[in-house]
Amino acid sequence: MAKIVIIGAGVMGSALSWPLSDNGHEVYLVGTHLDHSIIDSCKQSQYHPGLKRSLPKAVIPCNIEELPNIITGFDLIISGVNSLGVRWIGKTLSPFLKPRDKIVAVTKGLEIGSGGSLSILPEVMQRELPQSIGSRISIAAIGGPCIASELAGRRQSCVVVASNDDETANIFKQYSVTSYYHVWVAKDLKAVEIAAALKNAYTVSIGYVYGFLDKKGGVDTAGAGMYNFAAALFAQACSEIFQILDSYGLDPSHAFTLAGAGDLYVTCQKGRSFKAGHLLGEGRTLIQVHELLKGETLEAILVINEMAKLLPFLANDRKFPLMNFLVDLIVNNQQPQLDLDHFFDLVN
Amino acid sequence: MAKIVIIGAGVMGSALSWPLSDNGHEVYLVGTHLDHSIIDSCKQSQYHPGLKRSLPKAVIPCNIEELPNIITGFDLIISGVNSLGVRWIGKTLSPFLKPRDKIVAVTKGLEIGSGGSLSILPEVMQRELPQSIGSRISIAAIGGPCIASELAGRRQSCVVVASNDDETANIFKQYSVTSYYHVWVAKDLKAVEIAAALKNAYTVSIGYVYGFLDKKGGVDTAGAGMYNFAAALFAQACSEIFQILDSYGLDPSHAFTLAGAGDLYVTCQKGRSFKAGHLLGEGRTLIQVHELLKGETLEAILVINEMAKLLPFLANDRKFPLMNFLVDLIVNNQQPQLDLDHFFDLVN
Repeated sequence: MAKIVIIGAGVMGSALSWPLSDNGHEVYLVGTHLDHSIIDSCKQSQYHPGLKRSLPKAVIPCNIEELPNIITGFDLIISGVNSLGVRWIGKTLSPFLKPRDKIVAVTKGLEIGSGGSLSILPEVMQRELPQSIGSRISIAAIGGPCIASELAGRRQSCVVVASNDDETANIFKQYSVTSYYHVWVAKDLKAVEIAAALKNAYTVSIGYVYGFLDKKGGVDTAGAGMYNFAAALFAQACSEIFQILDSYGLDPSHAFTLAGAGDLYVTCQKGRSFKAGHLLGEGRTLIQVHELLKGETLEAILVINEMAKLLPFLANDRKFPLMNFLVDLIVNNQQPQLDLDHFFDLVN
Repeated sequence: MAKIVIIGAGVMGSALSWPLSDNGHEVYLVGTHLDHSIIDSCKQSQYHPGLKRSLPKAVIPCNIEELPNIITGFDLIISGVNSLGVRWIGKTLSPFLKPRDKIVAVTKGLEIGSGGSLSILPEVMQRELPQSIGSRISIAAIGGPCIASELAGRRQSCVVVASNDDETANIFKQYSVTSYYHVWVAKDLKAVEIAAALKNAYTVSIGYVYGFLDKKGGVDTAGAGMYNFAAALFAQACSEIFQILDSYGLDPSHAFTLAGAGDLYVTCQKGRSFKAGHLLGEGRTLIQVHELLKGETLEAILVINEMAKLLPFLANDRKFPLMNFLVDLIVNNQQPQLDLDHFFDLVN
């Protein structure tokens, strides 16, 4: 039996307590300073208001103030904070970490440095740790299609976990695999994280088409929607993710497996990024979208802002017309046209 | 202005008359012996009952008996028949074809010979022609997400066309590109056709999950559906299409561009293959599915039957657990379990 500390009581971090606890591990769910009302509810009755479900009985909910008492002797830490909390969790964990400790991150995002360097969020977190420890921590990240409410409902989910060593990904798999949670171990942490971050961004474009369809009066009298259009963007998204991974010498197969195409598909079925794109397609401004989705972190918007910094550094940015569209829409505040004739250069 | 003869007045062949006619070409839409009622309606008022829309005024509807009179001096033939009509169209065209004539096929399917040889439908059609002509005909095929009613509604669609020479694909592009119909030319005809055929088969598995969800009472009280499950199958489908193309030395990028992931996405939104899978997932038998979808050709079922013949010949058929599931379900008439733990070998 392992001792596992999940930090961040948002839906995804919390949902992981199901398979881990079903496997008999000692699971602590530690809320951040933003999660007090969630944790108070869990402490009272195990009911998680975000997931609309009671946590498994054995899961122990804790407030962040209790962290120093419960973190001793842990086998695995899971970082369930969103991308805005990545630096915070690095700072928060600093006093408690030692070399070879293991952290698994669920957050998806990326950051571009002023010189065009691309960092994935586990790297951003690592840089907050004391140098002597940061480089010696073992970090893994989870990608793939996993709506939290379905995992908490013990419904079939397949994910991929990758780490900067083989050990942490394999240990996470060993702790978490159940009859409903299927885990594959991959070697290329950076590829998984980039694919997972980009799929959020590209989902905005697909949601945009559905919103645009509604704006134009929806399906016409002969039953024609705009699914061809949405599907073309879906394919272009896979293709651009492939090319970005390939251009960094990373494993591009993640573009068309769980972290890429799989997660893109599920996010287009149900997700904040899709909802944001839908609202934009209806003609709302980004400010209106933020107001309407108040309280939700739009990782997709953050990623598009980062990609705006990266595009000028990519060898051939003409190959990313869909990301260029998203940057014009979100960052440059334009009403851009989708230049479909410049898609699919890869095919030729 | 080119003279273009479309044979087969089903929805897809007929829908192509929109961009071709909008570009000012002389377009004949020739129904097969099964299309008399469609053509009669079109002759009377241009109204196409399948598309629920009037054909562009310039399009000339014809019955099959008129073919000998109108086929002379054509620049391009488009074969719009379904996969069951491929041999018929080869025989029908035989008397009229000469070397270097150009045919574009919209049909998606494949055939496996007794020794495990894989033929795409353009090859099957070619074999019906006199030998002296068959090998010297230029054939192209169209792949990618294109619901016919949307194309006929002049809504944005992106497709890929590939031919056994560069010329026919390029000529089709030249004739058909409009502001709403975007055409990419690819070199690998066989890869495009195989990806296009397989996506129908794999769509059945994704539809199956949605049907299974309904059978289990739908979304649960906490809002959990089975989208993670569907998305995992989507990713596995892309991965298996990639591996099949790769194992034949074909261009595997078609697995995650228009003909693969793009067409898979749109077929999962709306399509017969999805409907068939949905009914199977609800617990209906294949016989019931055929009864309920009477009158619709289920290309997906035909492809799965062919793949049942191919799997034993593939070097490592363990790599295709999702296709094996479909074969068990459709061909072996079992109630198989989806062995999710054997997915995603590619990732490792």
